Amino acid sequence: MNNRPSLFTSLSPALLHLYDVRESIVVIIDVLRATSTIATALYNGASSVIPVDSVQRCIELGGQIGAITAGERDGKVAPGLAYGNSPFEYPRSFVENKTLVLTTTNGTKLLHMALNNGAPTVITGSFPNLSAVCDYLVAEKRNVILGCAAWKDRFNLEDTLFAGAVIDRIREHFEINCDSSQMAATLYQEAREDLYEFMKKKDASHYHRLTGYGLEKDIRYCLAADGANVLPIFIDGRLVVNQAI
Amino acid sequence: MNNRPSLFTSLSPALLHLYDVRESIVVIIDVLRATSTIATALYNGASSVIPVDSVQRCIELGGQIGAITAGERDGKVAPGLAYGNSPFEYPRSFVENKTLVLTTTNGTKLLHMALNNGAPTVITGSFPNLSAVCDYLVAEKRNVILGCAAWKDRFNLEDTLFAGAVIDRIREHFEINCDSSQMAATLYQEAREDLYEFMKKKDASHYHRLTGYGLEKDIRYCLAADGANVLPIFIDGRLVVNQAI
Repeated sequence: MNNRPSLFTSLSPALLHLYDVRESIVVIIDVLRATSTIATALYNGASSVIPVDSVQRCIELGGQIGAITAGERDGKVAPGLAYGNSPFEYPRSFVENKTLVLTTTNGTKLLHMALNNGAPTVITGSFPNLSAVCDYLVAEKRNVILGCAAWKDRFNLEDTLFAGAVIDRIREHFEINCDSSQMAATLYQEAREDLYEFMKKKDASHYHRLTGYGLEKDIRYCLAADGANVLPIFIDGRLVVNQAI
Repeated sequence: MNNRPSLFTSLSPALLHLYDVRESIVVIIDVLRATSTIATALYNGASSVIPVDSVQRCIELGGQIGAITAGERDGKVAPGLAYGNSPFEYPRSFVENKTLVLTTTNGTKLLHMALNNGAPTVITGSFPNLSAVCDYLVAEKRNVILGCAAWKDRFNLEDTLFAGAVIDRIREHFEINCDSSQMAATLYQEAREDLYEFMKKKDASHYHRLTGYGLEKDIRYCLAADGANVLPIFIDGRLVVNQAI
């Protein structure tokens, strides 16, 4: 007898079409830094985060509703936007009860792709909200697709490590016939003792890119578990804290 | 100073477009079992292997030139073809001085994709010809793309393990700014002591599929290094043994 729901890992937006998102919870994973920042802003009291797929749309919508406009392109604050993509830009004193309109290189793109493909439930995952994600997936007992945002469709280590961390915690609740998931869990086992050192030792492309901008502190925060342990869920065009937890 | 050539790993045919194949040697990797069988047939004296992308074309061409028609779909001998995709079907007593026309689910598709995208040099890699591949890549001093054939575009463990084995041997000769390659090498480090046990322990989807057909022996052969140590190179529509080695 086997009635456990399935779990798959999509390593890149360019592979998402291989999985049936219409019957699944899709977890959007963009560890450095979109989904870490989304969790942090909501944890710090932001009323919602609206992910949009272009800088232009971010500026327009931010102006219309009087929201904070935020986002990056290629790791830096996008021209025309007020704030960037660092979780440290969104302390409670700044974001409480505010709405953030956010656009990022990879994470918001994947989120819209999942929605356009018919995903009934979309949540966002990152190490700062690892436990909230795992608790939700176990409680829901539905099929899961862990969707790595990657970097311009290229596989990256940090999103895969997060997928591996989730699988490591919840695998006995799911049927996993998926080499990507097995690889992610194996990689996480190798890296778990010190994720930062692993990223450094492997010269991860995103480690390289962000340390070039002096963002070591961001990387360390984004690789630590449960610093902003809420569950962002996409409802009516916005990411809000899931109230069921 | 850095004038080493680059090395990238493409984890799936659906990701090949992210890499500039026009300036690179592309290594087609389909460990279970296309590229292992190609190396074996050539090692055993086949004059050439002609990879074609459909069963229909395989039958037509085989008839025209009086060649052995071989291939699989979904792991079994394709209807209408005389032979399958097992290396054990091609001993010297059978293939010497013969031509094989071969079609497979994933490997031949990726090979044609690389050619169509303008790859100047295409070779095939598998554990049975691991050393020949590594020696060639080091000697050529050109950019390399390790192209995993995957399974219907889904990431698989065995092709990635082969990419990792190559990287493990030759990495100091290349500039590697590629998370896929770092992951592949890490995975190989984990698995190297017993690749077969690793595949079994991780319940690799292809391990599962082939053992279901009673093909444990094939898997063991295809995971062992240098059992058929020649370098298949694509020249004038055929894979032949590279004579420069």
